[in-house]
Amino acid sequence: MTDPFVIVGGDAAGMSAASKCKRDDPDREVIVFEKGEWVSYGACGLPYYVKGEVETLTDLVSVTPEAFVEERGIDLRTNHEVTAIDREARTVTVAGPEGEFEQDYGDLLVATGAHAVEPPLDGMGLDGVFTLHDMNEAAAIRQYLGLETPTADLPPTDAGAAASEYAAAENPEAVAVVGGGYVGIEMAEAFAAHGLDVHLFEMLPHTLQPFGAEAAAVVEDHLREQGVRLHLDTPVDGFLGEDRVTAIAAGDVDVPVDLALVGVGVAPNTDLAAAAGIETGPTGAIATDEYGRTNDEHVYAAGDNAEMTHVVTGEPDHVPLALTANRAGRAIGATVAGDPTPVGEIAGTAAVKAFDLEVARTGVTDEETAREAGFDPVSVTITAESRAHYYPGGAEIEITMLGDRESGRVLGASVVGREGVAKRIDTVAAALHAELTAHQLSYLDLAYAPPFSPVWDPVLTAAKVLDGKLDG
Amino acid sequence: MTDPFVIVGGDAAGMSAASKCKRDDPDREVIVFEKGEWVSYGACGLPYYVKGEVETLTDLVSVTPEAFVEERGIDLRTNHEVTAIDREARTVTVAGPEGEFEQDYGDLLVATGAHAVEPPLDGMGLDGVFTLHDMNEAAAIRQYLGLETPTADLPPTDAGAAASEYAAAENPEAVAVVGGGYVGIEMAEAFAAHGLDVHLFEMLPHTLQPFGAEAAAVVEDHLREQGVRLHLDTPVDGFLGEDRVTAIAAGDVDVPVDLALVGVGVAPNTDLAAAAGIETGPTGAIATDEYGRTNDEHVYAAGDNAEMTHVVTGEPDHVPLALTANRAGRAIGATVAGDPTPVGEIAGTAAVKAFDLEVARTGVTDEETAREAGFDPVSVTITAESRAHYYPGGAEIEITMLGDRESGRVLGASVVGREGVAKRIDTVAAALHAELTAHQLSYLDLAYAPPFSPVWDPVLTAAKVLDGKLDG
Repeated sequence: MTDPFVIVGGDAAGMSAASKCKRDDPDREVIVFEKGEWVSYGACGLPYYVKGEVETLTDLVSVTPEAFVEERGIDLRTNHEVTAIDREARTVTVAGPEGEFEQDYGDLLVATGAHAVEPPLDGMGLDGVFTLHDMNEAAAIRQYLGLETPTADLPPTDAGAAASEYAAAENPEAVAVVGGGYVGIEMAEAFAAHGLDVHLFEMLPHTLQPFGAEAAAVVEDHLREQGVRLHLDTPVDGFLGEDRVTAIAAGDVDVPVDLALVGVGVAPNTDLAAAAGIETGPTGAIATDEYGRTNDEHVYAAGDNAEMTHVVTGEPDHVPLALTANRAGRAIGATVAGDPTPVGEIAGTAAVKAFDLEVARTGVTDEETAREAGFDPVSVTITAESRAHYYPGGAEIEITMLGDRESGRVLGASVVGREGVAKRIDTVAAALHAELTAHQLSYLDLAYAPPFSPVWDPVLTAAKVLDGKLDG
Repeated sequence: MTDPFVIVGGDAAGMSAASKCKRDDPDREVIVFEKGEWVSYGACGLPYYVKGEVETLTDLVSVTPEAFVEERGIDLRTNHEVTAIDREARTVTVAGPEGEFEQDYGDLLVATGAHAVEPPLDGMGLDGVFTLHDMNEAAAIRQYLGLETPTADLPPTDAGAAASEYAAAENPEAVAVVGGGYVGIEMAEAFAAHGLDVHLFEMLPHTLQPFGAEAAAVVEDHLREQGVRLHLDTPVDGFLGEDRVTAIAAGDVDVPVDLALVGVGVAPNTDLAAAAGIETGPTGAIATDEYGRTNDEHVYAAGDNAEMTHVVTGEPDHVPLALTANRAGRAIGATVAGDPTPVGEIAGTAAVKAFDLEVARTGVTDEETAREAGFDPVSVTITAESRAHYYPGGAEIEITMLGDRESGRVLGASVVGREGVAKRIDTVAAALHAELTAHQLSYLDLAYAPPFSPVWDPVLTAAKVLDGKLDG
């Protein structure tokens, strides 16, 4: 009998691996240790729970722990934390409600995810200063703002308890969001929906750094239109208040706020692996090969704690996103079940909604990164309509596209506009995976009908203009 | 001095070729003969003009004749019909307002388009029986229904005159649409918007034949929900009435109608070319090589009258659509200007709006065609959500995807749903051009954010399921 497939961490990567392995090899014992209460929930939906568009936290759960156990035959143990890996003995040390024990493994998947970075700011510990990385925090934020937290289905150890730590702020009027990334932008929208004055602080000259300055500038204009007070190029010094936050300090100004949300990125949870001699790569996340294997052939890593190969640069990269975690987990599940399956490459494809705007990006979108990867980048920015010019309801779409002068290859793109943006980036992502040139991309036979697109889709127009510039 | 580049037909292919050639080689004389009054107008928008969403016919014009002449330096002659081609002398015979004359050419582009097929039905000549292939007819249909025809900017030789041929029907109540293709479906929506009872007749068991039975069935349910009376598998015998149509006869039933719209497809205009010995291909459209050249190296053909190579089958195909015409025209313009540029291949990618549904297709979507092309087709149909399961406003998307068992390649797909459909097909179209396998398509890094997609985009899910079935 083969030793069990043991998985540390029961979110996207871990549960995808468990499910796929168990489906392909039903006789294999698959054990998942998850230190928290919940598994497989949509963390990307937390801003929409705070906003009120997702009614209860349990709506975010796609598969319950019971279903994993009963329907999929996975030995899922919540509230179990793996505290050590012994690679020589092929065991892990587990701390659970029943005490500490050792568990043998044949294959091990480290899917420990990432954590919200807590910058070393004064006053980070004040009540009312939050990050947003799990269900607890989302519920606590609503509680703090005096909003209902319909979490009836959650066990008391989870969000319910955390939320009740706080007394609601009295008539909250203003909030600070620190960091202009996905979480910052989405939470600005969520707070604004409750009528709060939102101050968004970004230390760089632009928000949404991975989307490039052109797209970010469009988003920033829109945020201002929506009443968000933008503080760009403005490092935050800290938070003021006695027990509860009352103001945010940044440079010369203190802005009174009732709540602060810090969303300055995530960092991979690598301590457990590193303590066992599992190597990290240049990005600080766990280094993996094309099958998601670490430097130990019996130990895999996937999800927000692992590096993936970038499809354009061919280099290891760390872009912690949900699809990557699901996909790599699933591939590792197949590999462990006996069908060696590469985890695939990433293009860093991402989309975000910013109030009434959609923004999306894929590949390499800044010239400096392109040059570092050995390309000779050429960039174009075009605007086009989302629908036929005569069809009502269309909106302008702006696309910035990068190509390589020598090979003619498309390197990446960002897209911004009010409609038809998020899924248009997928065509460019496909082109990156297929290593299409700008010329080839401009000759794809894409769909046209007046309600959905101009005759030349904006992606084709961008590729056409880029092709012309690469030729020139 | 090189002899002029002469173009027969001033719509998408012709004007794209003229514009591109003139831009790349400003010294080249470029002459376009267009037998009608207008050039470069969006025929695809005509149903939306009839519906009332596009206010005036002139809104459909993207570039005016004056702009082509004055801004682009093209010698555009409207109301000039080319009646003969002399390939040996390299001249065309032209009939214009000033009489008949000969025109030399160095290169000739035949871009004569297509015409609406008029089936040999009894009563086709009755007043109130229309096809829809140009601005005239669209205006006449509105006039006949007693709707305003704001065509003030049109010259009297065009729609204005045609429309005034008819006295409006008195209190029209019911209309017949013959043919369940794009035009039929779009016109059903247009007529229903005016409160008319719509009877849609289709001789085949399903509407939207190129989209496959699965997608068509979803559309048909929706059409019924919208009150359209569907007569499937029902060949039409003809139209009844003395001067004006009063009923449509099909099998055992006569349905009283006040107007009938016949949209049973288009056929390429090949007479001019054929009379000069230009060869047509297996589809009946003009045969062309990869540069859009006919069997005469000085004569090109592009647009609705020309064949293109299908990217999946590698065979000549005739799919008269707007992007194909624009793209081939543009490539020929570049070639004639001295930069040999292939016209590209087609995937038959298309989208159509049917009331509140979107439908799209690309590649080979039926098993019989796939087998004829030498593939061993495997098909899957999946349903998925357009957004994250917890995000409000999402809708179900159904995808049918075809793959080849031997190579694993994706051959085509159709998609139907209420949102996020039309542009999702583009990712599959890109995959077809890149000859991706189902496995490769399932591993693309596509965009995810809760408002726009589930973590696994429906396209990825379809590819994943197809890959599994191809493996099995």
